[in-house]
Amino acid sequence: MITVSIIGFGNVAQHLAAAFYESPEISLLQLFSRNSNPSSILPFEVEIIHNFEELKKADLYIIATSDGAISEISEKLSFENQLVAHTSGSVSMNDLSGKNRKAVFYPLQTFSKNKKLDFKNVPICLECESETDYHLLEKIAKSISHKVFPITSEQRKSLHVSAVFVNNFTNHLYHIADQICSEQNVSFEILKPLILETADKILTLSPKDAQTGPAKRNDLDTIHSHLEFLGSGNRHNIYQLLTHSIIEDGKKL
Amino acid sequence: MITVSIIGFGNVAQHLAAAFYESPEISLLQLFSRNSNPSSILPFEVEIIHNFEELKKADLYIIATSDGAISEISEKLSFENQLVAHTSGSVSMNDLSGKNRKAVFYPLQTFSKNKKLDFKNVPICLECESETDYHLLEKIAKSISHKVFPITSEQRKSLHVSAVFVNNFTNHLYHIADQICSEQNVSFEILKPLILETADKILTLSPKDAQTGPAKRNDLDTIHSHLEFLGSGNRHNIYQLLTHSIIEDGKKL
Repeated sequence: MITVSIIGFGNVAQHLAAAFYESPEISLLQLFSRNSNPSSILPFEVEIIHNFEELKKADLYIIATSDGAISEISEKLSFENQLVAHTSGSVSMNDLSGKNRKAVFYPLQTFSKNKKLDFKNVPICLECESETDYHLLEKIAKSISHKVFPITSEQRKSLHVSAVFVNNFTNHLYHIADQICSEQNVSFEILKPLILETADKILTLSPKDAQTGPAKRNDLDTIHSHLEFLGSGNRHNIYQLLTHSIIEDGKKL
Repeated sequence: MITVSIIGFGNVAQHLAAAFYESPEISLLQLFSRNSNPSSILPFEVEIIHNFEELKKADLYIIATSDGAISEISEKLSFENQLVAHTSGSVSMNDLSGKNRKAVFYPLQTFSKNKKLDFKNVPICLECESETDYHLLEKIAKSISHKVFPITSEQRKSLHVSAVFVNNFTNHLYHIADQICSEQNVSFEILKPLILETADKILTLSPKDAQTGPAKRNDLDTIHSHLEFLGSGNRHNIYQLLTHSIIEDGKKL
């Protein structure tokens, strides 16, 4: 049985731990929580520790903490030459301490506290220093997900930036729409089927082919009327810049 | 049986026609196509006409054409005092000719040529001049959708602008991510589960509560590193403006 321990107690750590707990190929050994009185009650049983010295020998240690803490924690580990991975999209593999074998185990998904996810569909991006370690990492990743990819640090950076566009920025556009609707006493519910279909469409069409709307049609009357409706401020500037970008892209075809 | 005829032969017209065809409460009388040799082959049987004079008496005529053609077509209709609706998000109800009873029948969804949609989940926004007409319109809309709303022209405008944000602009963000990935030889497939989950999340969380990422955390190191990665141009400017907008929103809390 392959043994895994997780350092961290946030959303990613808890979702990963739950996935490993359910995997018949993995034994989840320990979960490290900085806080000796963690508020979350885990829906599964695992030993929770609060001192790095208590970490038992495991085939893989996963540091699933905030980006800023990764390097320091990797230095604090009291053992050597073990396989230690972090889960960050933006931290370089080489930020890990050189005293252990470095790796990255980056699950590319947005994790919420109270929303269960099917980990089988979460893409896991792997990176490490040797082929032997890659085989082990891959085996561990495939035990919880159908979607496992070897990804270099540079590629991971492009994925992380892309994730900011398709998750953080997209969600902010939803937020702007929510605000516009509420100002006119219109229920945001009306937009939800459109939001779901917009995402669903790219499963069968490339985003380029799925593009529609006034900017794509270069429908200046509608664009001007929308800009007037939005007044000044961030929303107006966002509408203008994204419209400009869609129109420019159209010219490149 | 309530009778409906549709003027137009584009995506919206064809999806609407298919939905009415399947509704047991509606008799779809005629479909008007400007083009006497339309390229689409409809997956159901209906009389297709090419002259307005051939339009038979119906309880509702729906003009489902491009925005620019609505007013002119409504003028060309040879009958009077009938119920005539358009399907546009941005055209005012009063752009319809006054010789018939004006209405709006706006299905808020993105329609693709080759992708079947469950019309039951498409929100339909209704507007008309009298209560009697509203009852009829509502009955017709409810025969094809579970989601029917009375919406004023001003509210419809806010919905249309919002739809541009959550559909057109969101899709453009997907496109930018697709480009970034392909430049680094990373498969866009890796981002699809994140895209779907981002949309799915707002079914249970408000967009405000669902917001995560470097801008939300005011993580300036990551933001600067991403901006540097993006170089100059539209992508850089979009990243900067949306980040700025998320940070400003955070300050308002």
